[in-house]
Amino acid sequence: MATKAELEHFFQTDFPQADFTIESIGEKSATIRKKIAPGHLRPGGTVSGPVLMELADAALYVTILSEIGLVAMAVTTNLNINFLRKPSADKDIIAKCTLIKLGKSLAIGEVSIYSGDLPEPVAHAVGTYSIPPARA
Amino acid sequence: MATKAELEHFFQTDFPQADFTIESIGEKSATIRKKIAPGHLRPGGTVSGPVLMELADAALYVTILSEIGLVAMAVTTNLNINFLRKPSADKDIIAKCTLIKLGKSLAIGEVSIYSGDLPEPVAHAVGTYSIPPARA
Amino acid sequence: MATKAELEHFFQTDFPQADFTIESIGEKSATIRKKIAPGHLRPGGTVSGPVLMELADAALYVTILSEIGLVAMAVTTNLNINFLRKPSADKDIIAKCTLIKLGKSLAIGEVSIYSGDLPEPVAHAVGTYSIPPARA
Amino acid sequence: MATKAELEHFFQTDFPQADFTIESIGEKSATIRKKIAPGHLRPGGTVSGPVLMELADAALYVTILSEIGLVAMAVTTNLNINFLRKPSADKDIIAKCTLIKLGKSLAIGEVSIYSGDLPEPVAHAVGTYSIPPARA
Repeated sequence: MATKAELEHFFQTDFPQADFTIESIGEKSATIRKKIAPGHLRPGGTVSGPVLMELADAALYVTILSEIGLVAMAVTTNLNINFLRKPSADKDIIAKCTLIKLGKSLAIGEVSIYSGDLPEPVAHAVGTYSIPPARA
Repeated sequence: MATKAELEHFFQTDFPQADFTIESIGEKSATIRKKIAPGHLRPGGTVSGPVLMELADAALYVTILSEIGLVAMAVTTNLNINFLRKPSADKDIIAKCTLIKLGKSLAIGEVSIYSGDLPEPVAHAVGTYSIPPARA
Repeated sequence: MATKAELEHFFQTDFPQADFTIESIGEKSATIRKKIAPGHLRPGGTVSGPVLMELADAALYVTILSEIGLVAMAVTTNLNINFLRKPSADKDIIAKCTLIKLGKSLAIGEVSIYSGDLPEPVAHAVGTYSIPPARA
Repeated sequence: MATKAELEHFFQTDFPQADFTIESIGEKSATIRKKIAPGHLRPGGTVSGPVLMELADAALYVTILSEIGLVAMAVTTNLNINFLRKPSADKDIIAKCTLIKLGKSLAIGEVSIYSGDLPEPVAHAVGTYSIPPARA
């Protein structure tokens, strides 16, 4: 298990390029948030798909680490993402992850991604992480 | 249809943040390449998953635009990616895309992603783009 | 919109091979159930993957038809399924679907699949249906 | 490793409900074929999606067993399928699988599915199998 403060410290030191904040950690769940900057946009004034994929992957990683501890070597093995609606260019992107399986060697979770306070998700992802045998 | 030179000009002007070069354009296929920098790495000295996802998405986009012309508004609706092996931290990443369907309203392609000249792919993706009704 | 009774009649007449019962229809959601017979099992005494895939696809179809009416020609365009735990060979399989997008030309839903009354899902799927332009 | 004859015997004895023939086995690849009967069709006179999913899954299983031997307990953990074109109701369905990763604990392959001798695939799948630790 890792607390929100431990996770924040881990990302600051081990993933300095990680560009999101942790909103909350729950039971097998977590919510993270990312500010959108001009470099995240694509033609048409919407947030680019890879920004959403990156945040989905990060939300899974945060949620898994909150359960198993700070195991940097957990790695994504599969990610499936559906893009549902256009995010707003001037709103934060919020990713809410819930684990649907947390096994010894792999974890699977689903992530709903929102554009600011709009009620309908802009994307939905399901991803699998492989958890290394020797874990903290 | 768009040539390699037209595509390069399009990405320079419309996607200045796109950080790859187009190696070649073929029949319903394209190959692109990305130089890996420290910001693309993750703990363990390997290329981060989101970098591979972004390149898979870009390879699809380049391939589709090479067939239908410079339709900026084509958007990804689904991407499924499997991460197969660890990419090398000091090699370019190369993505080779082949379309498996090019319809009026959607295109589907598969992308094999390589780490430099290693023969086995490091990731494999399948993605769908929605093509807007009024196209060039 | 179609009621539970209308849907049951539709499957009896148009899909006589459909081998499930509709438990309930909700707002953008539905639950269906399938009895497991020896032909649905695989070595190891568990329900075979294709039986779960078929039920996931059927749950999506039922849910979409309950919203848009009895449009037989709606077709699956993508299905992604993760198998999470072994279903019991002697329990019904229950699939609960919730739509995450219901647009004019496509609908996307997620499906959690359960083995009898066990609390944890045995599989989780996300699927997309294409909806034909002229709909009831 | 298992030969075509060994695989055929295995499916006859362990999977009597398996309803396909093995056309050929290659290096990390295999082709299987299924005859289409009225029970495999859906409204509109096309082959139902679950029939294609089942054949994709079977093609993966055959290909993996041809490489690792007759390990009945290998199980699917993920399958992603895109439906590309309508199969013909009166043609066999052929599935061609190629493995893209064959590791100790998991194997990933892609499958192109054809309707008779039509040149374009009617579906494309990517699937992952988990391989049990003690293997033949």
